[in-house]
Amino acid sequence: MSSESSPLSGVEAYVFDVFGTVVDWYGSVTRALEKAAPAGYANEDWGAFTKEWRRGYGEYTRRVANGGQGSNNADVMHREILDGMLTSERWKHLARDWDDAKREELVQLWHKLDGWPDSTEGLRAIKQKAIIGTLSNGNVRLLVDMAKYADLPWDVIFSGELLGSYKPNPKTYLGAIHHLDVPPDKCAMVAAHIYDLRAAASHGMKTVYVRRPTEDADLKAHVKSKHDGGDVDVIVDSFKDLAALIP
Amino acid sequence: MSSESSPLSGVEAYVFDVFGTVVDWYGSVTRALEKAAPAGYANEDWGAFTKEWRRGYGEYTRRVANGGQGSNNADVMHREILDGMLTSERWKHLARDWDDAKREELVQLWHKLDGWPDSTEGLRAIKQKAIIGTLSNGNVRLLVDMAKYADLPWDVIFSGELLGSYKPNPKTYLGAIHHLDVPPDKCAMVAAHIYDLRAAASHGMKTVYVRRPTEDADLKAHVKSKHDGGDVDVIVDSFKDLAALIP
Repeated sequence: MSSESSPLSGVEAYVFDVFGTVVDWYGSVTRALEKAAPAGYANEDWGAFTKEWRRGYGEYTRRVANGGQGSNNADVMHREILDGMLTSERWKHLARDWDDAKREELVQLWHKLDGWPDSTEGLRAIKQKAIIGTLSNGNVRLLVDMAKYADLPWDVIFSGELLGSYKPNPKTYLGAIHHLDVPPDKCAMVAAHIYDLRAAASHGMKTVYVRRPTEDADLKAHVKSKHDGGDVDVIVDSFKDLAALIP
Repeated sequence: MSSESSPLSGVEAYVFDVFGTVVDWYGSVTRALEKAAPAGYANEDWGAFTKEWRRGYGEYTRRVANGGQGSNNADVMHREILDGMLTSERWKHLARDWDDAKREELVQLWHKLDGWPDSTEGLRAIKQKAIIGTLSNGNVRLLVDMAKYADLPWDVIFSGELLGSYKPNPKTYLGAIHHLDVPPDKCAMVAAHIYDLRAAASHGMKTVYVRRPTEDADLKAHVKSKHDGGDVDVIVDSFKDLAALIP
């Protein structure tokens, strides 16, 4: 493919989903919960706990993005979901051991997640060619802490709270485009979630789908590039692959 | 001074004014205008032109910060001020040579300013100890372009437009504190302008005054630290000095 015909030709800025796309929330939070486990709960299924917490995040952000009730701050959201889980039949036995201070500590686990093996090096390479930023439903402090912890060299942090809602609310994509002062087709959304890319494309943005083991489950096998009759501009398996595709 | 008694003890985040504090707007824009000068205007006083443009910026941002009319976007502001100057007696002879496209190009000069000699290295050292961000009246794209051009390793970009007004409007300081999720006294404002630090202090922030040759004119000789009976927490001559003072 010549540089002129690349769908990424002329793209000035790449904005990235973070949870799942840049960092491995499932492995990181599961491991951290194993360590944080109250004595006597070593055999708890912390992977299941992590998945339920994350599922709550998905439901909560979608509700708020669609105009429903809820906080725009991911820390507040993580705490509310955790409190809800700890009243459920499945997890209420943990509630006694996890007091207010402990729950605040657990919410902070979401600030320090490990990047995928290619994340840091891949982002550095992309940063040599274009602006790179977050476009995440996490709050600013969470994203800054994550960048320092996982060595993510962002040029700019865009967060749902900063732009007034969660993805896929239009405020988020349009806010990033406005503040980057680029035409929509000179800005690419990079995500491991097809719903995110379809929303970005509806505002004229370019789209890069990254296949990540924990994200989009069976769906990801069916995502196709426009070249192959599908609806995303580019599909990659790592940020290093993406860096190599940028003209 | 022991680490416990340092006024910067416990500060988690430093937010920086940019124009004049981190980058040398006067030298950079003057040199760029010399290069951009229409043929036959080599002997124009481009330093005076730059100073007048910058003075317009100060008046405009103060007016908007106080609730007056104007754009929150620094590029739009720079263009409006430039257009105004080019109708004035002093500069109207340039208007014929500077068409719309040229004026847009000149506005972009403010995106690529050289850092002071200590800026990059000093910011890197501070970044090892705390969060570092901009808190500038520039727009996001301007600040991102500047960071890439002058190698400024920000963790986060806060801009007047992003937070809803210009400094010294309270929205800017309170917005940064909110999104960084810190108590005000764990966040320090770093600036070469005493008005900026006094506004930050009024919201409970710590204050670091940096003496820069082009800023605050005679005023800067009179700024004193609290230790010496004045009103700022710390006074330094460079970011390297500041890095050394951080416990």
